[in-house]
This record gives sequence, C-alpha cells and structure tokens, in this order.
Amino acid sequence: MSSAPSPASTVPATKPHAFAGVFTLLTPHLAELDRFLHGQLASFEPEIRAMADYCIDTSGKRIRPALVFLSGWRGPGIVEPDLVRVAAVVELVHLATLVHDDIMDEADVRRSRRTAAREYGPTAAVLLGDALFAHALHLATQFPTTEICAAVSDSTRKVCAGEIVQTLRRGSTNVTRADYQRIVDLKTAELFRVSCFLGARLAGFEAGYVDAASRFGRHLGIAYQIYDDLVDFFGDETRIGKTLGTDLASGKLTLPLLALLDRLPPGDRAGLTAEIKGERPAQLALRLRQMRELGVFALVADAVQAEIAAATAALQEWPTHSPTPLLLGLCDVLRTQVAGLRPRD
Amino acid sequence: MSSAPSPASTVPATKPHAFAGVFTLLTPHLAELDRFLHGQLASFEPEIRAMADYCIDTSGKRIRPALVFLSGWRGPGIVEPDLVRVAAVVELVHLATLVHDDIMDEADVRRSRRTAAREYGPTAAVLLGDALFAHALHLATQFPTTEICAAVSDSTRKVCAGEIVQTLRRGSTNVTRADYQRIVDLKTAELFRVSCFLGARLAGFEAGYVDAASRFGRHLGIAYQIYDDLVDFFGDETRIGKTLGTDLASGKLTLPLLALLDRLPPGDRAGLTAEIKGERPAQLALRLRQMRELGVFALVADAVQAEIAAATAALQEWPTHSPTPLLLGLCDVLRTQVAGLRPRD
Repeated sequence: MSSAPSPASTVPATKPHAFAGVFTLLTPHLAELDRFLHGQLASFEPEIRAMADYCIDTSGKRIRPALVFLSGWRGPGIVEPDLVRVAAVVELVHLATLVHDDIMDEADVRRSRRTAAREYGPTAAVLLGDALFAHALHLATQFPTTEICAAVSDSTRKVCAGEIVQTLRRGSTNVTRADYQRIVDLKTAELFRVSCFLGARLAGFEAGYVDAASRFGRHLGIAYQIYDDLVDFFGDETRIGKTLGTDLASGKLTLPLLALLDRLPPGDRAGLTAEIKGERPAQLALRLRQMRELGVFALVADAVQAEIAAATAALQEWPTHSPTPLLLGLCDVLRTQVAGLRPRD
Repeated sequence: MSSAPSPASTVPATKPHAFAGVFTLLTPHLAELDRFLHGQLASFEPEIRAMADYCIDTSGKRIRPALVFLSGWRGPGIVEPDLVRVAAVVELVHLATLVHDDIMDEADVRRSRRTAAREYGPTAAVLLGDALFAHALHLATQFPTTEICAAVSDSTRKVCAGEIVQTLRRGSTNVTRADYQRIVDLKTAELFRVSCFLGARLAGFEAGYVDAASRFGRHLGIAYQIYDDLVDFFGDETRIGKTLGTDLASGKLTLPLLALLDRLPPGDRAGLTAEIKGERPAQLALRLRQMRELGVFALVADAVQAEIAAATAALQEWPTHSPTPLLLGLCDVLRTQVAGLRPRD
C-alpha cells in the first residue's frame, strides 16, 4: 500500500475554518468545551495523562461540537452542561479516529504539530486512540439513560467500518461512485448526523425535529467531505497549509478522481489507473489540467451543492425552530467556500 | 523498538487450557456465548462482517466470559441471557485488544491462524479492533441502566493505559517491581475484575459479595498474568505451541527478568541489560540456566501463590454463596499449573 506523502517539514499555516462566520456565535460554548475536555484529563491514568492532553489540542476545527451546540440552540448565551458533555463525547471520538488515521497515513504533522504517532510511536498511538474512544463512551454513560451511549457507540462502529472500506480500496481502481458515497456516508456523514441528533435530542426538541436535524447533519457531512476532497485538488496550497494531491498520491479514489477517470479517453485512462495503483508516480499538474479541461470541478461542485440542497430541504418544514436559521447559515458558508475554489480559466 | 520473533511457520499446537477442569461445567454457557457472538455479526456493516467473523473465532480460551458465568453462578444448567450478553461484551473488548496487540507485536500467528493484522493489513486491523470495541460498548448499552456500559468503558480505558505503559517501557531496564505490578493490574487484572463484578452484579448478589468477587477477580488476574510470564520462560515449547523467551527478545521486563536482573552479580547484569535493550542478541539458554541457579522460578511462583492467596481471602467471608466453590476451584487449577512448570533440577 502506498502512503500519503509527508507534508513539508515547515510548519503549515492553519487551514481557514470552513464555517468561520457561524462560529463566532459559539465562542462561549467552545471555550466551555475546552475547559470541560481539559477537566477530563484527571480521569485518565497518570501515566497517559500528558499523552491524552497532547491529543485534546485546541487548534482543532471543532465542527462536530459546533453541530451539537447549533442543533440544540435555544438562544444566545445559553451554554447547557448536557450539550457540552455530549459535544466532548463526539469530539473525543473524532480525535481518536484522527490519532488512528495518522498512524495509517504515516502522517508527520497535523494541525501544525507532530502527530501522536510520530510523537509517541505507532504502537502507543494505537492504544492512545483506544483510550480516547473508551473515555468518550464512558462520558456518554453519564446521562440518565443508555440512549446517548447507544447512539455514539453505533456511530463509532459505522465510522470505523467506513474507514476500513476506504482502506481496503486504496490503490484500487475498482471503486464505483456508489462505493464512494457509501464510504463518505459512513466515515464522515455518520458523526455529523449523530452530532445533530444528540444536540436536538438533548435540547428537548420534538421527535420530528430531531429526525430532521439528523437528516440535515448527514447531508451536510456528505457535502463537507466532498468539499474536502475537492480542496485536495483545487485548494490553495499556501492557504490550506498542506500539500495538494495527497489523495492521488495515496491511491484514494475520491470523487474528483472518479469523475476524471470517467471522462478521460480510454488511452489516457490507463496512465491515471497506473498512478492510482502506485505503479507510476502521480502526475498532479497534468491531472489538474485535465480536470479543468473536462469539467470535473463543476461536476464535483454540483455534487456538493446537491447535498447542501438536501440538507436544506430536511429543515424546510421547521423554519421557526431556533436551530434552523443557524444550521442553514452553515450551508451558506459551505456554498461560498466551494465557489471560492473554482479555478479561473 | 525491537519486535517479538515470529512463531515458526508450522501451525502451533493448542495451548492447554489453564482452567480446563472448571470449564466442563460451562459447556452450555460457552456454546450459548458462541451462538450469541455469531449472531452479533449481523450488526456489523456488510463490508466488514467477514472480518469481524474472523476475529470472533471459537478457539479462544474464553477465560473472561467464564469468570462472568462463574461469578454469576446460581446453579447448573441455568444460562442467563444477561450473563451471556455481558460475557460477549468482555470477550469482544478482549478480542479487540488482541487484534491491536498483534499489530504492535508484528505477530504472524495467534491461536493457530494468521492474525487479523497479517490477514487484512495493519491499517484495517487498527480499525477492525476499533469496530469491535465500539460494538462491545454498544452491546453494553442494551441493559436497563448505564451501569454496565460505564463499568466496561472505564475498564477498557484502564486496559489501554496498562498496554501503553508497557509499550513505553519496552527495551528499557528502568522498570521497577512496582511498575510491573501496575502494568499487570491495568492490562490484565482490570478485565478479570470487571468480569467478576459484572457476573455477580447481574446475578443479583448483594453489594458485599459483588465487591468480594471483584477483588477475587483482580487478584486472580494478577496471578494469571504472572503465571503467563513464567510460562514464557519455563513452559514446555511443544505443549504451549509457541516459542519461549519472546518477552526477553522483545525487551519486555516481566517479573522473571526483573528477579534475574536483581539477583545477577553486577558484572553479569550489564550483559542482560544489553539484551533487554536490544543491543545484543538474547541468550535465552544462558538466562534460563541463571534463573534456575538463582532461584528465580521459586520467587516468581511464590508471587503467583501470594496473589492466589489474596484471591481466596477475598471470598473467605462468603463460603456458602454459589459462585464461591467454583471460583476457588479456579485457584486450585492455577496452583497446579504453576507447580507443573517447576524445573527439575
């Protein structure tokens, strides 16, 4: 299996936050979340506390906690302890998957620092991810019923299943659009979905709204992942602070590559296939030019927009519920971000 | 970090079961457990079902489920569904840790077949272990209260912490007897303890007995781990079906090695230190002879016996409770196993 190229040894710039605007509203919530997460360190065995602290860094995007807070929004300035706790649960699950991802990707740097795998070695990083998972689930048991923990553990298994499917398909060109959708649904959309579910549920909204928020979260998660896959080809390297083209180099068939494979004439397709299989070095500049010429950007951007439309539609019947305008605000931000990637030509 | 040597490519013989006698009582329980575990496969995403099935093999020793059933013993022939479910939870947690252990140890074979890491690659194995953890915790949420899930997630974090401490100390000779005790307490005794706790608790025994069974489980777990560390030096290679001396080769300072280091004259100690650090090839035959000459076997066997005595003492006040004679039976079996390792000289 080929691995993703390591980022340059210089410290990368911070990636601009995809949802920056809406996040200013959440400043008190995210500050409380950070306090809560750091307070959890005392629950870890003394020997692994510093390692857990290293993972609970504060430079993360905290998108999933934000979805919890926004889906449970009852008004400004209200920071519900239950929402903070469950936001910590989903963030710890996410951080655990990042710790494990970075082992597999042999990544050196994430969020401007060495990954846990590089800092402590891959073996300790496997176990540290496990400990973070275990503590996330333990926090989820601190609600009156088993419902929260059941939802989180179910989602966690789905996220892992999605990552496994993606891993097994690496370097293979035998991946369909349906396979890609399935991977994205499991590895990304599921945790977005459950974050919205938990926020709306704990805030006490009626079942219909909880269901609508969950569907919103799922579609937003798919849209976000496709956007992220688009950034890997069409992003601005200096702004996103990482090397472009890592998906091609690591043989990960994301939507932009699937679309390019589909549109290339048969003769050219063999070359790209060899690059994906790791039989030939990736020709990023050529592939980018072909993507521009063959309208791949528009096709992928349209896929993002379709998911944003589905997310928006999920909330259509509930315009007056307090989370609705904020969640729809996230859609606007993402739409703008996608438009900003469009190549000038 | 040095890694354990791979077992010979021939299929190893099955290790004789440390608790064989008591296990005949549990035939219907363990058969039901296997049915239940295989029934869980439907809960995994179709793409990872075969992989989960591979891990839920039936050749495992099932010691932790046995502790659940014995601690919850109300009489022969009674197979309580709640005990089966919680036995599945602890076994899945244990299987997940084995999947992750085998990645780190670069082990090829476990229980006469290729490890999941060799079968599916280390990356998929990390995620598969995660999925097993997540499903274990999910099963634990299927009880009326959060108590079971809270106990299991707490234990899981402790097991991981123990493994991390052990990993970070590999190849180091800066390990004290207290460090060893701490590692064993976390990585092995904790899951033994919680298995006994859960069995007794779900069977409805009074709090005092649940507490006694938990203490019993913890001490039995420590005794079992020390016994297992003794087997790695004094076992019969053809009977246990694996290469001896893997702990020395992988720089793991277990009690037999700690005791030898302590008793060797300073001049000889430097050589062993270099072997533990991986600076020189391990001289297993020499170290075994020195262990015999310097009374290391007796010292370590005494440590096992002391923990068995502590386990026995935990149940002293509760002689008439139905699990007590069975749990004490486990102690007798382990005592006999340890005596059977004594070198003839």
